Amino acid sequence: MIRIVLAGAFGRMGREVVAMIDRTPHFRLVGIVDPKGRTLDGVPTYGSVGEALAPGADVFIDFTTPEVVYGHARAAIEHGVRPVIGTTGLQPEEIAELSARAGARRLGGVIAANFALGAVLMIRLAAEVAKYFPAAEIVELHHAMKRDAPSGTALMTAAAIARARRRPAEEAARLGAPVRDPAAERSGPGARLEAVEEMAPPSRGLILNGIPIHSVRLPGLVAHQEVLFGGEGETLLLRHDATTRAAFMPGLRLAVEKVMTLDRLVVGLENLLD
Amino acid sequence: MIRIVLAGAFGRMGREVVAMIDRTPHFRLVGIVDPKGRTLDGVPTYGSVGEALAPGADVFIDFTTPEVVYGHARAAIEHGVRPVIGTTGLQPEEIAELSARAGARRLGGVIAANFALGAVLMIRLAAEVAKYFPAAEIVELHHAMKRDAPSGTALMTAAAIARARRRPAEEAARLGAPVRDPAAERSGPGARLEAVEEMAPPSRGLILNGIPIHSVRLPGLVAHQEVLFGGEGETLLLRHDATTRAAFMPGLRLAVEKVMTLDRLVVGLENLLD
Amino acid sequence: MIRIVLAGAFGRMGREVVAMIDRTPHFRLVGIVDPKGRTLDGVPTYGSVGEALAPGADVFIDFTTPEVVYGHARAAIEHGVRPVIGTTGLQPEEIAELSARAGARRLGGVIAANFALGAVLMIRLAAEVAKYFPAAEIVELHHAMKRDAPSGTALMTAAAIARARRRPAEEAARLGAPVRDPAAERSGPGARLEAVEEMAPPSRGLILNGIPIHSVRLPGLVAHQEVLFGGEGETLLLRHDATTRAAFMPGLRLAVEKVMTLDRLVVGLENLLD
Amino acid sequence: MIRIVLAGAFGRMGREVVAMIDRTPHFRLVGIVDPKGRTLDGVPTYGSVGEALAPGADVFIDFTTPEVVYGHARAAIEHGVRPVIGTTGLQPEEIAELSARAGARRLGGVIAANFALGAVLMIRLAAEVAKYFPAAEIVELHHAMKRDAPSGTALMTAAAIARARRRPAEEAARLGAPVRDPAAERSGPGARLEAVEEMAPPSRGLILNGIPIHSVRLPGLVAHQEVLFGGEGETLLLRHDATTRAAFMPGLRLAVEKVMTLDRLVVGLENLLD
Repeated sequence: MIRIVLAGAFGRMGREVVAMIDRTPHFRLVGIVDPKGRTLDGVPTYGSVGEALAPGADVFIDFTTPEVVYGHARAAIEHGVRPVIGTTGLQPEEIAELSARAGARRLGGVIAANFALGAVLMIRLAAEVAKYFPAAEIVELHHAMKRDAPSGTALMTAAAIARARRRPAEEAARLGAPVRDPAAERSGPGARLEAVEEMAPPSRGLILNGIPIHSVRLPGLVAHQEVLFGGEGETLLLRHDATTRAAFMPGLRLAVEKVMTLDRLVVGLENLLD
Repeated sequence: MIRIVLAGAFGRMGREVVAMIDRTPHFRLVGIVDPKGRTLDGVPTYGSVGEALAPGADVFIDFTTPEVVYGHARAAIEHGVRPVIGTTGLQPEEIAELSARAGARRLGGVIAANFALGAVLMIRLAAEVAKYFPAAEIVELHHAMKRDAPSGTALMTAAAIARARRRPAEEAARLGAPVRDPAAERSGPGARLEAVEEMAPPSRGLILNGIPIHSVRLPGLVAHQEVLFGGEGETLLLRHDATTRAAFMPGLRLAVEKVMTLDRLVVGLENLLD
Repeated sequence: MIRIVLAGAFGRMGREVVAMIDRTPHFRLVGIVDPKGRTLDGVPTYGSVGEALAPGADVFIDFTTPEVVYGHARAAIEHGVRPVIGTTGLQPEEIAELSARAGARRLGGVIAANFALGAVLMIRLAAEVAKYFPAAEIVELHHAMKRDAPSGTALMTAAAIARARRRPAEEAARLGAPVRDPAAERSGPGARLEAVEEMAPPSRGLILNGIPIHSVRLPGLVAHQEVLFGGEGETLLLRHDATTRAAFMPGLRLAVEKVMTLDRLVVGLENLLD
Repeated sequence: MIRIVLAGAFGRMGREVVAMIDRTPHFRLVGIVDPKGRTLDGVPTYGSVGEALAPGADVFIDFTTPEVVYGHARAAIEHGVRPVIGTTGLQPEEIAELSARAGARRLGGVIAANFALGAVLMIRLAAEVAKYFPAAEIVELHHAMKRDAPSGTALMTAAAIARARRRPAEEAARLGAPVRDPAAERSGPGARLEAVEEMAPPSRGLILNGIPIHSVRLPGLVAHQEVLFGGEGETLLLRHDATTRAAFMPGLRLAVEKVMTLDRLVVGLENLLD
């Protein structure tokens, strides 16, 4: 039995999490954090993370807002409760700090921008294909209400492709595939991502490390991404479609289970797969 | 029997045109224009358009370069030979001038950026859908060698959608569809297209009259376009794929036949359809 | 103000209808039919259609089951209340009988297998494309729970394409497009659809009037359809994706409004469009 | 320098092979086999494989017909020249015999139904995804002239997915993914593929080991395949498009290089990848 405290239970994702915990026999929701004092049947509501964790819990799940997530995650670590964070917006230095604190206590934790198992698989496959097809572009498509562009998943995909390309691409060269992007080579293995080719026409999108990213925003869309690879006379397409928030539950369930066996903070669902 | 003079016979499109004329019983190639003096079996080669048209012809087809096409088209009209122009790059004022000259002689002519019947149909369908689904984005995908972005077809599609939106959209409003783009409304019916929303993030592409255009360039692609419309809970996609230059021949054949019955210059294959 | 009685309010589609009526200012839900006696806030529940319609109503909406829909629709007509039927399963002879009864009373009515405006548009566009691209195949994709195959929308699309092909295809012939299917020609304009090419290998799907239909059933899908047309060197694709039941509300709203002005039974949302 | 003899040089694929050898610095075409005696500039033509191989060669490439390929491959092995076979139609017992003869001589050889690197990668990725998403369907799309259905690539993909599913799917189960197909479990690991679910409606396609395969045949298509995986609330799509025969050249080049280092017959390009 894994005892869970949840912050953000009344958001759209939070409701899915409550339902998922409910239908998972070995999970139990032992408290929710809600400053507005809203309640759920049979689960105590607390005004702050500190109060919620005091009675004891195994895992703290957070689907709140960029403004409060860092404080929440830090409080969880201080109470020795493993954080599983789905809220986006943590800054790199905040993640580094949380990682240091969790490591010092040998406490498990998971921060993931995307719990959709299919999206995470897509990123892994993209890295594999990039070894053979160095030329790639990303088109991500989301509902019109999504304010940021590009999506976090698109940025992660571009980074994964760029890393895969940096590996010795002898195989690709031997196959007569197009030569890899010089921009990607200029940056070393540890280089942070940076926009290049500023001179490209606007319709070419945001070009990161030689990989153009295009963002489509329309009503009727949910969350979709295409990664298109091109080679001599052929193309290979990976496409992920998440049609309901239920898509995130298998990955979140996996994270809650795995975090119990970790002794450090892991960033990215992909690092929990075999 | 329609007697044809062709300029650009040795380009990639030109070769297709030669083959198409060859397999069309009522077409006959009576001359080619090639300043380098290259020859084709059984067809005289001329160094200039004037020389080629002097012996008499019904139609002059041009698949050459932006630098020479205007001079070619003007020479054809002066000789009373109907121009069918597939070369891109004519400026609006050049088209206006050619149109005036053809009109004065009551001579037929066709200028088309795209002879792919499927692409032209796609534009017409896009205008129809836009009446019901005002929110749209365009993704055009071409081989890595294509230098310009966005494609001419994408620009034409965006213009057709913007025009369709400007019509009284009562139907759309009654259906509870998203309200139309204010940018589109600010411009009057005769307004020229202009880029708006300069502040959009780069991955949102080039936004013309409220319609984002995204350009993908990869080896292995040929010529493709998607127009995606979004409404409440649903999307509608139009996609055109041209896999070989043969795709342009049915539309070119149609243009050559129709130009014989015209008494003015028509711009766009779509204006030749019923 | 249009007064509406609804049968099937507690099904998944019914709940959407309740919400749609609620957010449409000029619609009012004046009664629901539920043999189990379930209730909605502020709306009377009746055990039968007859009881529900007795107090007076303008429109009767039905999203129930194939077993009861015919009786419901007949009762509505007898009470002089316009039926708008979204339940599938009515037999051709039942529709004929309802049509005769509505016509005799000069009462409006709508029966539609599909209220997704995008799907209906797709069918109309498919008929238009079929005039130029006679070769077409349909791939419909639905969630794994959908028991029947192919979908009603796919059958309607195939019928619309076959009808469009039967029109004089001179244009297509002139363009050098592939000749039309002889199977389609054997059947006259009024012929019912029938399966041909029984000898095709199983992976070629169900072939109706020369148009193969393929049905995909997978978890994670909602309701999708592709119509792919092929011509010389090019293809044209129409694709509709309905991601939530909200997709049906704009079309249903349109039907409720239009039925008030009709004096006969109309079958198919497409026949309500301009 | 690898010396190559080619049979089938005047077919559509053969012409691509000649061009590929020509532009690969370390390949040399030392002879072609053509019973009709057609010639290529600077390369001797022989009437039979035996005559062509007598002067000495490293590799024998065959793109001929099902009727003659077995005899050709056997002759190559007898002459100690490594066969690289792209012709389809070899029977399992013929492949077994060729394999035994090559093995006895410790001679390398490659038989591949598909040299498109992208297609082979797609099959590999499909097997990987199948571990997490057990539900899958295949749609393969080819030009209208392709007579057989389904394609060989589709059959290979279905077999690869079925094999991947048979592995302990604990991970998938833990993630709440749909349970795997009982049909797949009934067959043991070594079981040959066989059609099940004969009772499915025709639009559901050919169902092999629980994986439906759909075949689309239209003019304008070249060679395309989609593998669609479905899970809770999401789908993952792999799609390969081969637009020209050039797509097969990188894979063929790889095969010619690798065959020089083999001491047995390898079936399938996928078995040459790392």
